[in-house]
Amino acid sequence: MAIKLYDLAGAELDRRFSPYCWRTKMALAHKGLDFETIPWRFTDKPAIAFSGSDRVPVLVDGDTSVADSWNIATYLEDTYRERPSLFGGIHSRAATRFINNWADSILHPALVRLLVLDILHHLHLDDRTYFRESREKRFGVTLEAFAADTAGNLATLRHALEPLRAMLAAQPFIGGDTPLYGDYIVFGSLQWARSVGRTRLLETTDPIEVWRGKLLDAFGGLARHAHGYW
Amino acid sequence: MAIKLYDLAGAELDRRFSPYCWRTKMALAHKGLDFETIPWRFTDKPAIAFSGSDRVPVLVDGDTSVADSWNIATYLEDTYRERPSLFGGIHSRAATRFINNWADSILHPALVRLLVLDILHHLHLDDRTYFRESREKRFGVTLEAFAADTAGNLATLRHALEPLRAMLAAQPFIGGDTPLYGDYIVFGSLQWARSVGRTRLLETTDPIEVWRGKLLDAFGGLARHAHGYW
Repeated sequence: MAIKLYDLAGAELDRRFSPYCWRTKMALAHKGLDFETIPWRFTDKPAIAFSGSDRVPVLVDGDTSVADSWNIATYLEDTYRERPSLFGGIHSRAATRFINNWADSILHPALVRLLVLDILHHLHLDDRTYFRESREKRFGVTLEAFAADTAGNLATLRHALEPLRAMLAAQPFIGGDTPLYGDYIVFGSLQWARSVGRTRLLETTDPIEVWRGKLLDAFGGLARHAHGYW
Repeated sequence: MAIKLYDLAGAELDRRFSPYCWRTKMALAHKGLDFETIPWRFTDKPAIAFSGSDRVPVLVDGDTSVADSWNIATYLEDTYRERPSLFGGIHSRAATRFINNWADSILHPALVRLLVLDILHHLHLDDRTYFRESREKRFGVTLEAFAADTAGNLATLRHALEPLRAMLAAQPFIGGDTPLYGDYIVFGSLQWARSVGRTRLLETTDPIEVWRGKLLDAFGGLARHAHGYW
């Protein structure tokens, strides 16, 4: 029985925009595991209540369900040890947690200002009110005010990505010579942007774009073939 | 013959404030290597010209000299393989480069605004003019203007450290159960602050302070016994 993954979807069921779900899909592909995705929307809380979580990704593997992208990655690593490693050792796993938390606490707050209106426009009507109300409560301003300074937000994003840009001058992937879960973490964030935003956020000459191109092509183009803009 | 390390010093020769030199000193201690430091000041360029670098750290190990803290760390790891590993494997080394670049490109620009006047005040008179002129040229404003918004700069620093703070809720060190070079990178940045700044930059209740305390005590209190304020 294939692994099932509850995967955030927009109004179009094949627009899958969650950065966290992208981490998991790349991790499953890296492990060479068959999986099927179940499109899920923000207001479908009852559909995943069995997992104890109200957010995706939620992975179902036989009788086991796991929520939260980091927990899923470590579950896959520890359960499918004979398959290609996502981390390459316990110390690398430990250091990768820094990258995971950096993406969540620094990169995503920079990205969400650039994406929040695009996300809204791609949501199913059932989700729009929930999304606007929950995010305006979280941000303390209207979504339009939150997103207003596009040029400043873009500069913040590009600066936030400097640690990745600098390292790509010395090695092709965060994992070293080949991509590992650290790469999928940051790549997932850029899939979020690609899946809802018509505007390219990085210069085509940015080394990050070369790296992103390789990951778009990985696993038979899993990410490149997904619904998105750039 | 003990390893020699050219180590940035202030007006007082025992005030060693370079974050990059602190990375190296902690790495040498981790490897259990004997070393002696040679105090060096910004305007002592001729003293390290043999290395091809005009900045410290510069390490001299027998006939070999190595400049740049990252290059030194990888030199020590590859040369002293039988001693405790600084990275714990090639993939962890690859991921640690992200942390290294994050410290250099995100954490240090946040810290330097808080420290630049303290650094100036601790420099030898011979270095002060060089320091002010080179930094004002780099920053494009006077040092006083660059450092003016203390409250804002402090908030920026504390926010920038969120990836570390979040990970310490799940594991005691960046290296996992024990400290590795990734820990020394970030710790070095905070030693910079401790060595010149009278003002504590983090709340005593911040989990980062617990982690920092353990590293201050490591290797017989190497870092705690160094000249500093908090």
